[in-house]
Amino acid sequence: MPRTASASVRVLGIDPALRVTGYGVVERGRDGLTLIEAGVVAPNPRSSLEVRLRVLHEGIAEVIAQTQPHWVVLEEVYANPRNPLTSIMMGHARGVLCLAGAQAGVSVRTLAHAHVKRALTGSGAARKEQVAAMVTHLLNLRAAPSPHDVSDALALALAFLNLWTGRASIPDAG
Amino acid sequence: MPRTASASVRVLGIDPALRVTGYGVVERGRDGLTLIEAGVVAPNPRSSLEVRLRVLHEGIAEVIAQTQPHWVVLEEVYANPRNPLTSIMMGHARGVLCLAGAQAGVSVRTLAHAHVKRALTGSGAARKEQVAAMVTHLLNLRAAPSPHDVSDALALALAFLNLWTGRASIPDAG
Repeated sequence: MPRTASASVRVLGIDPALRVTGYGVVERGRDGLTLIEAGVVAPNPRSSLEVRLRVLHEGIAEVIAQTQPHWVVLEEVYANPRNPLTSIMMGHARGVLCLAGAQAGVSVRTLAHAHVKRALTGSGAARKEQVAAMVTHLLNLRAAPSPHDVSDALALALAFLNLWTGRASIPDAG
Repeated sequence: MPRTASASVRVLGIDPALRVTGYGVVERGRDGLTLIEAGVVAPNPRSSLEVRLRVLHEGIAEVIAQTQPHWVVLEEVYANPRNPLTSIMMGHARGVLCLAGAQAGVSVRTLAHAHVKRALTGSGAARKEQVAAMVTHLLNLRAAPSPHDVSDALALALAFLNLWTGRASIPDAG
């Protein structure tokens, strides 16, 4: 969905997890950056896996339907060697969120963690607090978004908007 | 969905993978075991991740709608230490398949690989060919189901049907 630099672009960043999935929708228009909506989807941890996945899928599908983003942006897949089972369960969550994008006809793109940090702070080794401070500054917020899952999701959206005009391609979610 | 031993029970076994997901629906009724339907869902590997997930989800949702199983059965999650990224991508596929079950109101259950082998052959250390031979025998087939993804899915369904009356509980997909 290529757009010219003058048109507004709206991006949904998602930080997927089975327990708490953070999301944030940011628009870049003529007047700069605007926070459209942000929050979390947190399924009941006592529900069965398939019900938790349904809650996540429905929650994000609703956000997509209501805010109509042009892109969904996720962090690049990485394997956590200390906790392989947690990584696989995160994969379940990421799967149903990618699906929600596909079902709405929205392309899913990914950014590596270091790219997000570099895009927002100039350094791929920036600390979490520095990234949160840039999110707060860029969106003109009174305080850093909380919980950190929301801040991380907004950082993804902002990094994508920062990189998107300057670069030819941003990899897909595979 | 508890049932008495005399009612028929229909189970959908699934062997999830992004490239080739095998499935098989088996019914146990008054006349014994019947193969209702089996096959694979194989998304185009050149499509984007989110499109492949949509194809998998749609394919299995259609199988569920057409065959109306009482249970969906998957293999228990395990981490493959030699290929953690592949395990995470398998998690994406497993996530959208669990979701298809939840959306149809069908409970998802899991069995460990060794339990499947033991339920079908009497030994948790049985070779793949022995399991395939038992699938062929129990379903009265002329030859072992092919590809192996279908045989593995049918083995899950048959093992569940074997264990289900005898045991009080079979764990859910988490």
